[in-house]
Amino acid sequence: MTEIALIVGTGSGLSASLARLFAKNGMKVALASRKPQKLDALAREIGARHYACDASSRSDVPALFKSVTADLGAPDLVVYNPSYRTRGPLIELDPVEVEKALMVTCYGGFLVGQAAARQMLERGHGSILFTGASASVKGYAQSAPFAMGKFGLRGLAQSMARELQPKNIHVAHFVIDGGVRSARRPDPNERPDSTLDPGGIAQTYLDVLRQPRSAWSLEVEMRPWVEPF
Amino acid sequence: MTEIALIVGTGSGLSASLARLFAKNGMKVALASRKPQKLDALAREIGARHYACDASSRSDVPALFKSVTADLGAPDLVVYNPSYRTRGPLIELDPVEVEKALMVTCYGGFLVGQAAARQMLERGHGSILFTGASASVKGYAQSAPFAMGKFGLRGLAQSMARELQPKNIHVAHFVIDGGVRSARRPDPNERPDSTLDPGGIAQTYLDVLRQPRSAWSLEVEMRPWVEPF
Amino acid sequence: MTEIALIVGTGSGLSASLARLFAKNGMKVALASRKPQKLDALAREIGARHYACDASSRSDVPALFKSVTADLGAPDLVVYNPSYRTRGPLIELDPVEVEKALMVTCYGGFLVGQAAARQMLERGHGSILFTGASASVKGYAQSAPFAMGKFGLRGLAQSMARELQPKNIHVAHFVIDGGVRSARRPDPNERPDSTLDPGGIAQTYLDVLRQPRSAWSLEVEMRPWVEPF
Amino acid sequence: MTEIALIVGTGSGLSASLARLFAKNGMKVALASRKPQKLDALAREIGARHYACDASSRSDVPALFKSVTADLGAPDLVVYNPSYRTRGPLIELDPVEVEKALMVTCYGGFLVGQAAARQMLERGHGSILFTGASASVKGYAQSAPFAMGKFGLRGLAQSMARELQPKNIHVAHFVIDGGVRSARRPDPNERPDSTLDPGGIAQTYLDVLRQPRSAWSLEVEMRPWVEPF
Repeated sequence: MTEIALIVGTGSGLSASLARLFAKNGMKVALASRKPQKLDALAREIGARHYACDASSRSDVPALFKSVTADLGAPDLVVYNPSYRTRGPLIELDPVEVEKALMVTCYGGFLVGQAAARQMLERGHGSILFTGASASVKGYAQSAPFAMGKFGLRGLAQSMARELQPKNIHVAHFVIDGGVRSARRPDPNERPDSTLDPGGIAQTYLDVLRQPRSAWSLEVEMRPWVEPF
Repeated sequence: MTEIALIVGTGSGLSASLARLFAKNGMKVALASRKPQKLDALAREIGARHYACDASSRSDVPALFKSVTADLGAPDLVVYNPSYRTRGPLIELDPVEVEKALMVTCYGGFLVGQAAARQMLERGHGSILFTGASASVKGYAQSAPFAMGKFGLRGLAQSMARELQPKNIHVAHFVIDGGVRSARRPDPNERPDSTLDPGGIAQTYLDVLRQPRSAWSLEVEMRPWVEPF
Repeated sequence: MTEIALIVGTGSGLSASLARLFAKNGMKVALASRKPQKLDALAREIGARHYACDASSRSDVPALFKSVTADLGAPDLVVYNPSYRTRGPLIELDPVEVEKALMVTCYGGFLVGQAAARQMLERGHGSILFTGASASVKGYAQSAPFAMGKFGLRGLAQSMARELQPKNIHVAHFVIDGGVRSARRPDPNERPDSTLDPGGIAQTYLDVLRQPRSAWSLEVEMRPWVEPF
Repeated sequence: MTEIALIVGTGSGLSASLARLFAKNGMKVALASRKPQKLDALAREIGARHYACDASSRSDVPALFKSVTADLGAPDLVVYNPSYRTRGPLIELDPVEVEKALMVTCYGGFLVGQAAARQMLERGHGSILFTGASASVKGYAQSAPFAMGKFGLRGLAQSMARELQPKNIHVAHFVIDGGVRSARRPDPNERPDSTLDPGGIAQTYLDVLRQPRSAWSLEVEMRPWVEPF
């Protein structure tokens, strides 16, 4: 049976790589983003549907799941990628921006995770994957809002795993510990592979998806070979 | 010189114990709470001021610091205790309540920490203490919102420590790993000391406050002797 | 070019599953164990060589690498599986047994890791995988020796990763958080998949081996879907 | 009643500071070291007894506890400080030295902890403190042996805490995350307090000792205000 994959937050290279890899492996792919027009080319390339959705909106998220389900079917697999960050000395941070960072990076994960769990519990299976960062496990100076959001998302993933895994829903959290390669951040010629290849990350997501339920991973971290840590 | 202590979130027994211990050690104490009338008796008992403040409000928090500073002077020590939780199966959680949990438990910590840091950086010293819970380091089933908030608060504390400690501001995070004794949760007779004595917790907060800056602790966890973990 | 895999410590079902999976993927496999006669059938089945080696012996380990290299070539991939445990109330533990637990579980990992690294640094590539357990990250009551050994092995893996990964040697540590299915520990009928399928674990080892160096994982934990944690 | 404190491993400035602080607080102090003659002056200064003991020796440790008990009484408090390290590129490390590092840093902790627990369980109370380092929680490049020993010691402390705390024996583990000030490592004038003051560390050990059993800490980390982490 064809699997349905929903990828939320498609701005980064990672979402595109996931979409391509999932499509190549025979899945039907839905993409959601605040600005879905950015996804036109990708959607055409891999035959995916794309949807407008602000992941931190209590009305957008249920509407997204309704649309995807109507168009493709209930997702077997949901990936949550959105994040928003604001940086700078703690005392100069704009509290409005900090709230947004928390809402997009963490609260949206709850909204999407809850909507996904509702369908998956009914159907008796599914996988929910959350994308973390170095800031998921280490709070860096001048970057409190990102740490708040990503730590919080990790807490959500752990809690969901403890609750949902015994109900046959695999929850996994990935700590991307380094810069992801993209058009804006190309791999430096003199130091090959020092940025994370999004295709490589995507393959590990797929590997985790394919794990038998007797040996599920909850957390997997990835970093380039030369990354200090 | 008399130290000024500001304790935010005074509902729990811990805040009262901290207030008493700080007063006993010669500090001037300010208490802040959403419902300050609850604090009348305690404030009279120890000669403290008390203030109304919703810690998750972008307007209340700066106003609180302004009032405390006008009344007592700029705080040398700020403790952040508020939390809000909603529990239950993930799919039954009310998203409005989940947002509130995140805002009170985590975002308020940012607002208070930022306001405290502004004054402390100017004065060249200070201590900011955050109260965590078991859920700061472990996401429990049916308790995702508390994990989201408390994980996020821990990320904030780590980030603030890395940024502010080299500027002579001590940031500490306490993991309270067990139930705190209170009128509502008395210590069971047949199992003495199986709940955390808030006076004992408060003493460890004071011990950490008194650490010389050559040997500062960032994180201290506490639990009853018989607590499984 | 055919890859050479050396699996040390072949008593458990995991080593056999790894050996079969590696052979199936075209690798030449060497197996090492204190009692290699136990491996006769497996070795014949998959066309592997097998060797006698006490992994905690300073003389056995270099001899093992010499023999494997002479017979098959230098290993591209080395897996360290041995462990030894003694359990019981702390005060009743036999110190001789505790030393053995530390030597087999941890020190042997150093000896094998060092021997592997010597050849791999010279050849400019390689992978070294260490098998951990729940006890790698949590010290359980009445099981101090296993925690000592497995925590220590994890420290070794982290240190080796920081030193060797920038030299193109992938070091990974797996936290097997649950009981591994075996003839002695069959999966209970009434609770399917509640023990770790060694074939599932082995597949994740292979997935990690195949990661591109721009996105290497250092630590991956696995547990059955119904495992409390 | 006078408390008896036994401090094992007295080479470092930390042990001397602990001894002075404990004596000042009215305890009777016993010091143990491989080379006790180094302790003559300190022992005279504070009226302590000192003993020769190789902490990694299965015969020395029981003999030490027998002597201390005969001379002063059974220790209420035992501190384990010894460590041994060998550094360098992994492939150049001498396996004999690596074994010694593991035995002194970790195995000796077991021997001393077991001997202490035997007496304390009989008497129904006691405290056992272990000294860790940055390497207890992070394995650094070119320092695998220290990570192996210190990770292992942390595993021991966790396991002992889970087993012994419900029997009224407090077990604590301290992560000393930075260089400790000493005659050989003076605090740099231009960067005051950038090394850990052993007196400050000792005070935190004493604070933890004084915690009521309803609010015990298992792990406390300390670092200088300017230490990167």
